[in-house]
Amino acid sequence: MKFTKMQGCGNDYVYINCFEENVEDPSALAVKMSNRNYGVGSDGLILICPSDEADFRMRMFNADGSESEMCGNGIRCVGKYVYDRGLTDKTTVSISTLVGIKILELNVIDGAVDTIRVDMGEPVFKAEKIPVSEGGNEIVRKTIQACGENFKFTCLSMGNPHAVTYVENIKDFDVEKYGSVIENDKFFPNRVNVEFVEKVNDNYLKMRVWERGSGETLACGTGTCACVVASVLNGLCGRRTEVELLGGNLMIEWNEENNRVYMTGPARYSFDGVWLA
Amino acid sequence: MKFTKMQGCGNDYVYINCFEENVEDPSALAVKMSNRNYGVGSDGLILICPSDEADFRMRMFNADGSESEMCGNGIRCVGKYVYDRGLTDKTTVSISTLVGIKILELNVIDGAVDTIRVDMGEPVFKAEKIPVSEGGNEIVRKTIQACGENFKFTCLSMGNPHAVTYVENIKDFDVEKYGSVIENDKFFPNRVNVEFVEKVNDNYLKMRVWERGSGETLACGTGTCACVVASVLNGLCGRRTEVELLGGNLMIEWNEENNRVYMTGPARYSFDGVWLA
Repeated sequence: MKFTKMQGCGNDYVYINCFEENVEDPSALAVKMSNRNYGVGSDGLILICPSDEADFRMRMFNADGSESEMCGNGIRCVGKYVYDRGLTDKTTVSISTLVGIKILELNVIDGAVDTIRVDMGEPVFKAEKIPVSEGGNEIVRKTIQACGENFKFTCLSMGNPHAVTYVENIKDFDVEKYGSVIENDKFFPNRVNVEFVEKVNDNYLKMRVWERGSGETLACGTGTCACVVASVLNGLCGRRTEVELLGGNLMIEWNEENNRVYMTGPARYSFDGVWLA
Repeated sequence: MKFTKMQGCGNDYVYINCFEENVEDPSALAVKMSNRNYGVGSDGLILICPSDEADFRMRMFNADGSESEMCGNGIRCVGKYVYDRGLTDKTTVSISTLVGIKILELNVIDGAVDTIRVDMGEPVFKAEKIPVSEGGNEIVRKTIQACGENFKFTCLSMGNPHAVTYVENIKDFDVEKYGSVIENDKFFPNRVNVEFVEKVNDNYLKMRVWERGSGETLACGTGTCACVVASVLNGLCGRRTEVELLGGNLMIEWNEENNRVYMTGPARYSFDGVWLA
């Protein structure tokens, strides 16, 4: 079986073109292929499939075999793959996911996709929809204590719950220590993804992310969107702001007219492979 | 550039056939390819090259780009590769390494190599050659204290230094806690690889290994040889004994006639690849 390994900001998946390959049990295959010693090694498996309602359909399986809803870094790689490999010649591509149809704008340079802009939808601020355990239409600068220290969190959902806070020196900050405690604070009934942010200037932030159930990761697309939305609400950055993550940089735009958040970032090939195990 | 990803007992390397491919800077390539998010992901890079003095030459680079002397799990994969891919039709193959020429016996089933027997050489017992800081011709049941507990170590070199000790319940043993302390005990001037062993019966041992500079690993070929040699010296197992590691099983024979240690184990393909990054 042929596959391609790609990464977006260090978030790496095995991609299979299901116009050519037939995957009978994607959950089991994801577990085998994701193993970093015995398999291909990845954060999971993404199938690029035909769709009745969009140009393509993306199915995504985590390394543990569970099916996942969406991944901002993964869907950018799908956009690059379908154009570069000749599955489409459109530069605006619709992709069906478990959370609806996502629209991608492909930035093509010398015949290959360089960066991809993804419409990540509208932020959700209502307390019960994030969800958080109390509050009203906007949770800004809510104080939560972790390990004896007070943090002020701005909370919102980008399809999944996020809590954004600001620190002085992100490089030396102990993300694991505080992230693990905040993730499980009773204020977040479904737990939460935690973004720690350092402002550099009005259009440049640095961020590290603690992902619910995964720990610290190199990048998180929805978390980066949440970071810029929260920072606009706090008057800390403009509506078009670049965010530096451990795994790379993303440009986020929170559009004033339609309230939607757009994420632009890279997608890269690592290698093409033929599975032998 | 074409490559093949293979593993032996979970010890996984990128293999490049240098009869077909030209690698200009293997150290830099090892760093790039070994990265598990941005590269292929591996414990390192192994080049299969022509040799004037043996059937093949193996060059091995760690994930940090440093050149390594030998790897028992890696050289088995080289044996499988050269036969399966038609670079030789011999089933006894000599491979030149930085620590001399190694002889492999290939066990072929249905035209493909299944297991590989590697002549790992003779164990070295003299204190100054292991090295340990004091003692004579054999270091058996030397007491070393770690974290307030006493362990009895049998020490020897298989080209690199090993210290073997016995525990009741290897599954629940805290290898990291004790391994890190023993590795750096002043008794070992060049530090040491530490093997924790549980006897199951006279021909079956379970072992976990703390590798000098790497921490706990899935398998260690020289450490498994050291484990059986030490266990023979302690009257705990026979000269042909199977060892169960986290990453798989190895059969070790310490030959009575020639004093050499033979390691037999598997080698497996994960995938063939074409590097694009």
